[in-house]
Amino acid sequence: MPTFDEYVAQNRERFLNELKDFTAQPSVAAQNLGMREMADKVLARLQKLGAQARLIPIADGFPVVYGEIGSGAKTLLIYDHYDVQPPEPLDLWTTPPWEPTIRDGKIYARGVADNKGDLLLRLQAVESWLATEGALPLKIKWVIEGEEEIGSPNLGKFVAAQRELIQGADGCLWEFGAKDSHENPMLICGLKGILYLELHARGANRDLHSGAASIVENPAWRLVWALATLKNERDEITIDSYNDYVREPNALELEAASHIPFDTDLELEKFGVKQFINGARDFDAVKKLYFTPTVTICGIQSGYTGAGGKTVLPNHAFVKLDFRLVPDQTPELILDLLRRHLDAHGFADIQIVQTENGEHVARSPLDSAIVQAAKAAARATYQRDAVVYPTAAGSGPMYDLCQQLNIPAVSAGCGYPDTRGHAPDENIRIDDYFQSIVFIRELIRNFADN
Amino acid sequence: MPTFDEYVAQNRERFLNELKDFTAQPSVAAQNLGMREMADKVLARLQKLGAQARLIPIADGFPVVYGEIGSGAKTLLIYDHYDVQPPEPLDLWTTPPWEPTIRDGKIYARGVADNKGDLLLRLQAVESWLATEGALPLKIKWVIEGEEEIGSPNLGKFVAAQRELIQGADGCLWEFGAKDSHENPMLICGLKGILYLELHARGANRDLHSGAASIVENPAWRLVWALATLKNERDEITIDSYNDYVREPNALELEAASHIPFDTDLELEKFGVKQFINGARDFDAVKKLYFTPTVTICGIQSGYTGAGGKTVLPNHAFVKLDFRLVPDQTPELILDLLRRHLDAHGFADIQIVQTENGEHVARSPLDSAIVQAAKAAARATYQRDAVVYPTAAGSGPMYDLCQQLNIPAVSAGCGYPDTRGHAPDENIRIDDYFQSIVFIRELIRNFADN
Repeated sequence: MPTFDEYVAQNRERFLNELKDFTAQPSVAAQNLGMREMADKVLARLQKLGAQARLIPIADGFPVVYGEIGSGAKTLLIYDHYDVQPPEPLDLWTTPPWEPTIRDGKIYARGVADNKGDLLLRLQAVESWLATEGALPLKIKWVIEGEEEIGSPNLGKFVAAQRELIQGADGCLWEFGAKDSHENPMLICGLKGILYLELHARGANRDLHSGAASIVENPAWRLVWALATLKNERDEITIDSYNDYVREPNALELEAASHIPFDTDLELEKFGVKQFINGARDFDAVKKLYFTPTVTICGIQSGYTGAGGKTVLPNHAFVKLDFRLVPDQTPELILDLLRRHLDAHGFADIQIVQTENGEHVARSPLDSAIVQAAKAAARATYQRDAVVYPTAAGSGPMYDLCQQLNIPAVSAGCGYPDTRGHAPDENIRIDDYFQSIVFIRELIRNFADN
Repeated sequence: MPTFDEYVAQNRERFLNELKDFTAQPSVAAQNLGMREMADKVLARLQKLGAQARLIPIADGFPVVYGEIGSGAKTLLIYDHYDVQPPEPLDLWTTPPWEPTIRDGKIYARGVADNKGDLLLRLQAVESWLATEGALPLKIKWVIEGEEEIGSPNLGKFVAAQRELIQGADGCLWEFGAKDSHENPMLICGLKGILYLELHARGANRDLHSGAASIVENPAWRLVWALATLKNERDEITIDSYNDYVREPNALELEAASHIPFDTDLELEKFGVKQFINGARDFDAVKKLYFTPTVTICGIQSGYTGAGGKTVLPNHAFVKLDFRLVPDQTPELILDLLRRHLDAHGFADIQIVQTENGEHVARSPLDSAIVQAAKAAARATYQRDAVVYPTAAGSGPMYDLCQQLNIPAVSAGCGYPDTRGHAPDENIRIDDYFQSIVFIRELIRNFADN
């Protein structure tokens, strides 16, 4: 019988081909593209592994792929998602997003990092364990949803309906992760909350010749003025009462954050900017990144934006806004504050359209067994200490699946700083991918033993 | 020999088919679409009329169609353009923009009002004169350019190069016009100036996951903040020194404007709005419309604006702005003030891209022979007095062709209040079209006799 490492080496080509197959399949929940095909692929892969697996339907949504395998004193929950971000803008991809391509030891495709790489390598790690180590020393339960990139609107309802499947798990391995720019493995123990919505302003009953602009209100101007009341040039969020709900990080969180390496000049170079907002550097930038809320214009559109000139007074303008939340903010609270703010500042005419469910802030205890097992696994795999993050800058439905049920969670995965998640040329390094397979072996071993 | 009216009646079907043929031909200068084909059609129609006509090439531009016919003591210059606005957004057209369609006595097509209808009916009027009245009593010179909708970037150079063709004309019939909502014919004796440009803000070297938004500057926010310094919610243009160059209308202009009928409630209903900006009504709205400058967001774009949600931090944002100018503003001055203003308010990073040449403000003396002839022609055609506008709310290259050479100009044409120029479902009423043919006969007669 080969060793685990030998087995992985022998199956390297097949494992990569499986990854290409997974990422060649579009699965964009926001565009209802290829979702059933992808769910079926994931289900088949779980079944091939020997897991008891099935699709659990979601009313008016995309099914959850659920699987179980192994037995033992401990239960490890694994959360992944088979949906990915929209691939646009297409013209900025070096090779097409649905044509996985290897260049310079990296594999490029939409979703290869977020989250199909980690989703698949965890299955391949279990396959390799079973083929070389024998039975699993614990029970693994997979919840692989299809709506993460649209804000997991149904995961809370899924958990409520399937509570007996999930509760009692001893820890959860969350979907994503990466090495930092110093090649340290990162362990993420929390997530920001999020509220995503659109603001719409409307004017005349049709687009007009712009000669009418001296008397007919322009919704694009109204939207600009409304937006300018939400955040100012000093990066202060100016929504009424907004900052009353921002809890400062506690001493433990600050201590952990103080170990987060942040090479300001390297980060500046990576992003291609001369300075960060308000000139923040080093630990100030770290605190800003992880412990402050944001209001982001993700998209804005009005009128004619094609080639050449068109002298038109548009009759509609909209913006897509993403609010990243910290304790004690909640999506419901922020939505309410925003509506009150707009009304109070003369923008009662601006319509709020919440296109996705919000997500709650999540934090896990840093001394929980799953975090400790992940730290040990990282040390064994990478021969160095992991950096422990009290929270990521991003969001996800961790609260719904984990903290709500008192399941501590840690996130770790195969990305690296230039992974370009949610952007053109998303990619992972192939060596990281295979190291992550080893990390899963170590996590299983350490979590079962603790 | 038939009378003029009989001849027009006999040729009604052919005249309409010629109009359909002209409007079925796309000719969008901004998109370089169908321009040569359209120039050739116009040239052929002039030659069919018996005019001495030719294409005068424009370096790096679209040719001017020039024609001459007739002789007499007076010379009437006619200015039209064979280019039209882009047809987007296509989905808001009831029938496709390049498929001229008759419904309820109206003909719908991109360019049917602005300006192919008037362009063609003036030729058909001269044809009808020659077939029924004999020789023309004056000389007519046509300048029909192909770049009006992109700001006539080359008309000034054309006039400089072809000055001997144009100077000495006794008056000019300008390209457009309409009946007002009381069915009064309108005579337009001036135009606002215009400056059209884009502002661009740039951020990181690529689109980022919006988790980075707490430290990486968002160009969409920067553009919003910059725009909010240009105009406020009270509709005051707040560009530094901008209002120092706004000359109030003089007594003569105000007196003419006081005869402009403006049924506020009818106009509100037409545009589908509850009130005009700052609640302006009646003569206040008229003065606002014709005598104040504007800054209009014609288009704005950044990030992801497709279906569903995308949590992206965009790296580029741009806006298309249209500045309508009044005396003593000039495009060059406003461009300079805008750059200084942005620099002074912390937006030196915002790039200005002037995509089209500006146009100067134009005004003609209201007692000139061409205005008097047009008033008499309107009275004879429509059995009522025309309303004389010191200026339109819109712009055009009138100054370059006319005022610069001391040629008074008046604009009159076949539109009506629901003509939807520059917008989906552009249309004219067929009865107006044929009345305008009679108006041209009367204008030729009255201008030659004065």
